[in-house]
Amino acid sequence: LRLVRVEVGQRSETVRRANLSAIIRGLHDAGPMSRSQIVAATGLTRTAIGGLVGELVAAGLVQEAPAVRQGTPGRPSPVVRIVRDGAVVLAIEMLVDSLSVASVGLDGRVIVQERVTRARDERSVEAVVAHIASMAAEVRARTPAPIVGVGVAVAGVVRRRDGLVAMAPNLGWVDEPFGERLAAVLALNVPVTVANDADLGALAEHLRGAGVGVDDLIYVSGEVGVGGGAIVGGRPLDGLAGYGGEIGHLPVNPGGSPCRCGSIGCWETEVGEGALLSLAGLSPDAGRRGIDLVLREAQAGNQVAVAALEHVGRWLAVGLAALVNILNPQLIVLGSMHGRIYPASRHTVEAGLSARALPAPRAVVRIVPATLGADAPLIGAAELALEPILVDPAGFMARPAPVQRLASAS
Amino acid sequence: LRLVRVEVGQRSETVRRANLSAIIRGLHDAGPMSRSQIVAATGLTRTAIGGLVGELVAAGLVQEAPAVRQGTPGRPSPVVRIVRDGAVVLAIEMLVDSLSVASVGLDGRVIVQERVTRARDERSVEAVVAHIASMAAEVRARTPAPIVGVGVAVAGVVRRRDGLVAMAPNLGWVDEPFGERLAAVLALNVPVTVANDADLGALAEHLRGAGVGVDDLIYVSGEVGVGGGAIVGGRPLDGLAGYGGEIGHLPVNPGGSPCRCGSIGCWETEVGEGALLSLAGLSPDAGRRGIDLVLREAQAGNQVAVAALEHVGRWLAVGLAALVNILNPQLIVLGSMHGRIYPASRHTVEAGLSARALPAPRAVVRIVPATLGADAPLIGAAELALEPILVDPAGFMARPAPVQRLASAS
Repeated sequence: LRLVRVEVGQRSETVRRANLSAIIRGLHDAGPMSRSQIVAATGLTRTAIGGLVGELVAAGLVQEAPAVRQGTPGRPSPVVRIVRDGAVVLAIEMLVDSLSVASVGLDGRVIVQERVTRARDERSVEAVVAHIASMAAEVRARTPAPIVGVGVAVAGVVRRRDGLVAMAPNLGWVDEPFGERLAAVLALNVPVTVANDADLGALAEHLRGAGVGVDDLIYVSGEVGVGGGAIVGGRPLDGLAGYGGEIGHLPVNPGGSPCRCGSIGCWETEVGEGALLSLAGLSPDAGRRGIDLVLREAQAGNQVAVAALEHVGRWLAVGLAALVNILNPQLIVLGSMHGRIYPASRHTVEAGLSARALPAPRAVVRIVPATLGADAPLIGAAELALEPILVDPAGFMARPAPVQRLASAS
Repeated sequence: LRLVRVEVGQRSETVRRANLSAIIRGLHDAGPMSRSQIVAATGLTRTAIGGLVGELVAAGLVQEAPAVRQGTPGRPSPVVRIVRDGAVVLAIEMLVDSLSVASVGLDGRVIVQERVTRARDERSVEAVVAHIASMAAEVRARTPAPIVGVGVAVAGVVRRRDGLVAMAPNLGWVDEPFGERLAAVLALNVPVTVANDADLGALAEHLRGAGVGVDDLIYVSGEVGVGGGAIVGGRPLDGLAGYGGEIGHLPVNPGGSPCRCGSIGCWETEVGEGALLSLAGLSPDAGRRGIDLVLREAQAGNQVAVAALEHVGRWLAVGLAALVNILNPQLIVLGSMHGRIYPASRHTVEAGLSARALPAPRAVVRIVPATLGADAPLIGAAELALEPILVDPAGFMARPAPVQRLASAS
């Protein structure tokens, strides 16, 4: 059970709210538990747990089912589980090549999802927002619950406070008030929270993927740009304004090529999709199919493809060494392109990391491919939208219901 | 008042302990406060604060003084302050060129301090430990209180759990059980905690120096090696095992020079003391006097010295850009050599950072020199030793007193 933390000096109402939060977050993160397990995990009394669970049941956020007798002495303990429809959020993922909208329940599972391929030249924020709104209407029409929050993953540098996209070089956006426009067009009267796609991918792999139970991890994803995120001491590395974790723009090669961000020799110029494809003699825009072709060619012994993969593996190791020396993580999770090519580049990456990183933090870190696949940022976006409910379920239970237009698949 | 965080589900004893901790940490961090201020900051009742402060007074950790009437209505509120001698720790700083031992009170202030210049060729751990022990005996003889904990700052990569120095390239140490040997020779029967010097410098600048009130900061120090530390969301960036924050070994120039750590082109090969001195035509071992000479020569218009400072400033900016893009800090604190040369290299560093870092995190970060000077790691070491008392003063109050030999200045 992942216990939340509360400020000390709390009055009894504060303690009650924090305990409600601890219970619902535990059920959300770890799945159904018996009342006895909750008692054991929280240190609260049976009576207190009974009362708190009762409140959550009355609010429709959790439900109890009679337990199957386990053969152990004593009364069987009822099993408590999240009600998926108790709080449904909209998760939106806006990447360079694709757009996805899903409704996600309080248990973090997808209810309805739409994913479409996106034209890279659709760059107008208005067009993107309109596209998202029409997909959202479809998803809402097929979702049997009102939407209580919206989380958005976008491939850019995002100011968390208001969803301003300060820069998205691969979308051509600078200082676009994406969050505000999206909230206005969706008109759902619920909070809309925007964050960087890779930061949310890291959160998703930490909560639901390769990094469950690991409190210090680095997540590297690579679609067109190279993104990443980190979990430090169990918390996302957001930094002061939400700009943290922009690992694609680690300056790894000051004598290298210009980067779209305006600097020189950023990590993504050496290990991005475009770098691999160009080195393999393909168009830098050949996308996922191009990557698959490079992998097949390398396996067939094509030395140009092999050398391209080695180049990317070597430079991947340089950037990973920087992150290992700074963050001392337990796990490196490789997502998207880097997860797919890892079987082919594994030896180069492991050896390069050993040569470049300090031996002590190197010895304690493992590299694994991501397990959530392309949906990681979307799942992280849902967690972002669910977070206020998990932090303060009592406040959520007491809120007036948002006024929303009826959804229609327009 | 910096409130500590406690797990929810706590019984009343847990709440009491957490509240005692919140009060003593607030007084430790921010200085004396009136009872009314403590009431306002914690949200507890006057009666509860009265009882908790009474416990701390009875244990000799804090004292109360009658308040001066402020001209405001109501009874004047007594002023509560830390008793310096209520808990005294030994702080030890083991750098390449110097060794310092101090006794530090519960208020974080130095009581007695010794600092000596160290011969760089004194590399045997036994000799270093014996040297520290004799300085510690002198400091203890002049300190009118028993020692309740020991904190140690060392210029190396340290495993926090047991004080193993995994690597200290500038001391020539690999996998030395420094913490255990020191504890055995000091024979104080109190915990001995060892950490990296720059990590502790970061903690000290955060609590007592240029970064007070700033929860996201980077600290760069440079004695012989380049060290650094970071505070992320108000907490030190230790990583999984305490190896975090090794920014001196950021790989910034993969085509550069071999580093003592075994890698190539680490940040310290470009911005360390040795790099600056060599570029300026001096011996790389000329130390602080050499740096002062370079600064004087540059001011007098010596173009070799100017170019050396520019080189270091340019490369400092490259590494800072990496840290800014990853950590999105509010403040960069430049300590030791980098603080001293900053007035001369400021323009190069600021311009370089603007060219290399992403505009969004760049716009929110400021660069300042450290304010604690050479003592920063020592002050951080004291905070490390005081931490268990600040986290659980009730446990400290209930402990049996350690059995210690009488100190004599041998």
